Amino acid sequence: MDRLVCYDCGRTYSFGTAARCGCGEPLWFDIDDETVSWPDTGSESAGSVSYGHDGLWRYASVLPAAVPTGLAAAAGGTPLLRTPSIETPDGPRIHLKLEGANPTGSFKDRGTAVGISRVDGPVGTVSHGNMALSVAAHAAATDREAVILVAEDTPDSRLAMIAQHDPHLFRVRGDYGRLYDDTLEHDLGVAFLNSDSPLRVAGQKTVAYEICEAFRPAVPDAIVLPVSSGGQASGVWKALRELGSAGLIDEVPRIYLAQAARCDPIAQAYRLGASRVRPVTDEPTAAVSINNADPPSGNRALAAVDDTDGAVVSVAEESLLAETKRLAADAGVSVEPSCAVATAAVRELAETTEIGADEDVAVILTGSGYKYESPETDSTAVREIDRSDVPAAIRDLAS
Amino acid sequence: MDRLVCYDCGRTYSFGTAARCGCGEPLWFDIDDETVSWPDTGSESAGSVSYGHDGLWRYASVLPAAVPTGLAAAAGGTPLLRTPSIETPDGPRIHLKLEGANPTGSFKDRGTAVGISRVDGPVGTVSHGNMALSVAAHAAATDREAVILVAEDTPDSRLAMIAQHDPHLFRVRGDYGRLYDDTLEHDLGVAFLNSDSPLRVAGQKTVAYEICEAFRPAVPDAIVLPVSSGGQASGVWKALRELGSAGLIDEVPRIYLAQAARCDPIAQAYRLGASRVRPVTDEPTAAVSINNADPPSGNRALAAVDDTDGAVVSVAEESLLAETKRLAADAGVSVEPSCAVATAAVRELAETTEIGADEDVAVILTGSGYKYESPETDSTAVREIDRSDVPAAIRDLAS
Ligand SMILES: [Zn+2]
Ligand SMILES: [Zn+2]
Repeated sequence: MDRLVCYDCGRTYSFGTAARCGCGEPLWFDIDDETVSWPDTGSESAGSVSYGHDGLWRYASVLPAAVPTGLAAAAGGTPLLRTPSIETPDGPRIHLKLEGANPTGSFKDRGTAVGISRVDGPVGTVSHGNMALSVAAHAAATDREAVILVAEDTPDSRLAMIAQHDPHLFRVRGDYGRLYDDTLEHDLGVAFLNSDSPLRVAGQKTVAYEICEAFRPAVPDAIVLPVSSGGQASGVWKALRELGSAGLIDEVPRIYLAQAARCDPIAQAYRLGASRVRPVTDEPTAAVSINNADPPSGNRALAAVDDTDGAVVSVAEESLLAETKRLAADAGVSVEPSCAVATAAVRELAETTEIGADEDVAVILTGSGYKYESPETDSTAVREIDRSDVPAAIRDLAS
Repeated sequence: MDRLVCYDCGRTYSFGTAARCGCGEPLWFDIDDETVSWPDTGSESAGSVSYGHDGLWRYASVLPAAVPTGLAAAAGGTPLLRTPSIETPDGPRIHLKLEGANPTGSFKDRGTAVGISRVDGPVGTVSHGNMALSVAAHAAATDREAVILVAEDTPDSRLAMIAQHDPHLFRVRGDYGRLYDDTLEHDLGVAFLNSDSPLRVAGQKTVAYEICEAFRPAVPDAIVLPVSSGGQASGVWKALRELGSAGLIDEVPRIYLAQAARCDPIAQAYRLGASRVRPVTDEPTAAVSINNADPPSGNRALAAVDDTDGAVVSVAEESLLAETKRLAADAGVSVEPSCAVATAAVRELAETTEIGADEDVAVILTGSGYKYESPETDSTAVREIDRSDVPAAIRDLAS
């Protein structure tokens, strides 16, 4: 699997010869229809031990890397749950895809696992969050050097989490937004597995393969996910194109993307009916992991929405904060605010009847909330009590 | 599935009529051999959507609860990984079972999922860690009241993590060790899913079903895990007894249990050749989640080791701290120190040739390390750098 193609102008390149298309748009791997098929249910992973679930390597025939051992073998294969407890009477059936079950607690392990299984030598990434942790962990597992470039304002607690995997960790002063381009422009001797690199998008697409396979022979009516760089949205679209082109799905789920209103360049372009995303000036938001004011795959994400008759939704700050609490309190699922934008978007799309009550929606919850500093405990949430008073207090509650 | 039995004296009870056996030992569910079988590879979960992996519900025929929807459906089905990067030349092949991939990041979700799917009404637990979080989350998902009794010294950060799932959270002053018995002795109108309750042990046993199924038609030579209350060790033993009795495994893996040397009542009893565990006076250890000085299923854990020709290993404090770092830096797996005792024990057992170089060992890594406060970042681990200096710095590293 060695041919890259531009989704927009169709030009092709050999893998390794171009970081982006000459037209400026990002590239992805070209997949032959013949390699696309549903795996046998009894498919085996590498080696003599069958690991129960093969994770994303279940779809090895459409991936540009060979099945690995070690941590990369554990990526993907995450649970998908029907969650009636957060459905509304007029809303759709909601199925949550728990990407926090990946080894480093986020969806980023899919792309990292595929990327690191393909390239040799040092790897790197430009990230202040989930991707930095994922690349550091997978590099550790494969005994590689990892170069992690984080923004100057990255909190110490996050650095400590990343540092345990022993990468070269740089806190970079200056225009962090430009660093992504720097890593494309220079030949640094390091393979940068950034958010929309073709290898990463190949890994990220497997989440949509898993969702569609779960619904066989039907498909969900819609797939809803947060969008930041546009890399994951590109991966979902790529999977749907591959499955459709190979005749494995009859209908194509609509792709809905969710952004925080305080940093929503893709939503702004969508509302304008534009095909090109312009950089915005962002305001601080609790949805830090999707705070990308100039998304490198923004145009491609917009094309995914347009092609599948979806939409891009801006979620107000108070709404995404409330939704984070609601998921924890009503579904038992802890996520970052960056992730809760997706179920908040479902709520808004149901209210406007863009998504119907008789529809099935798969929502990609991109990462676990337990990894991040918990909010301050509301002091009224905890009661101090003497042991001898416990039985009476419990009887009071239960009666 | 309504009969409980004592592993020690063989007395039986109807479910719900006894918290422990009259002899003082804990009870577990009695399983008929006829219900024990390997599932079809294509087994389906409840509902019209097949969720790819069914998690622990793959073994529903040997569980005392019906297949649920929502969060409980996502428990189990965790990855098992061969990890050559932490194997030593004279040591065994190491396969890590990543229990941190459960929905709340720990093995406790198995028992909680089964328990909460069986009982009605309010649930509770006595825990300061993984079990408290798990019960709070699963109660939230099923719209139940949850009573969480934590110790007085539980850190605020941990309370905040638990509080997001909206339980009744009590910080209890007084003898916390006695609270476990309090919840058994009183009829409080709350179902306490404590560490060695029969429902929890039924859920916890599924990890050994998964491990043994992965090795079919062989079995691993040994299963190594941390031990605290003895509940998980009991579950592993129960699974091996069921699988052996039904003729599904030919040989029984040896069970090895690991404790922190600073709180090792089960290891002390093992070294004395005793069949009964005596409470110890513990010293503070970084392995907080297994710091149980008077384990309620300690005798049963000891019987598991004795019956399978295993051993109990005490791990020195400096060794468990070093092993926590090693797993993160060499396997890319972040765990609590409470969990790293298990791979540290493998290292010691390999050195004494108790586990041979030609053997396969499955190690249960009970929970994710990302949930807990990260250690202080070593300030030398992070370099501050200007953006313009990044290319040169990376070239230096890669050359
Ligand atoms: Zn192009
Ligand atoms: Zn008895």
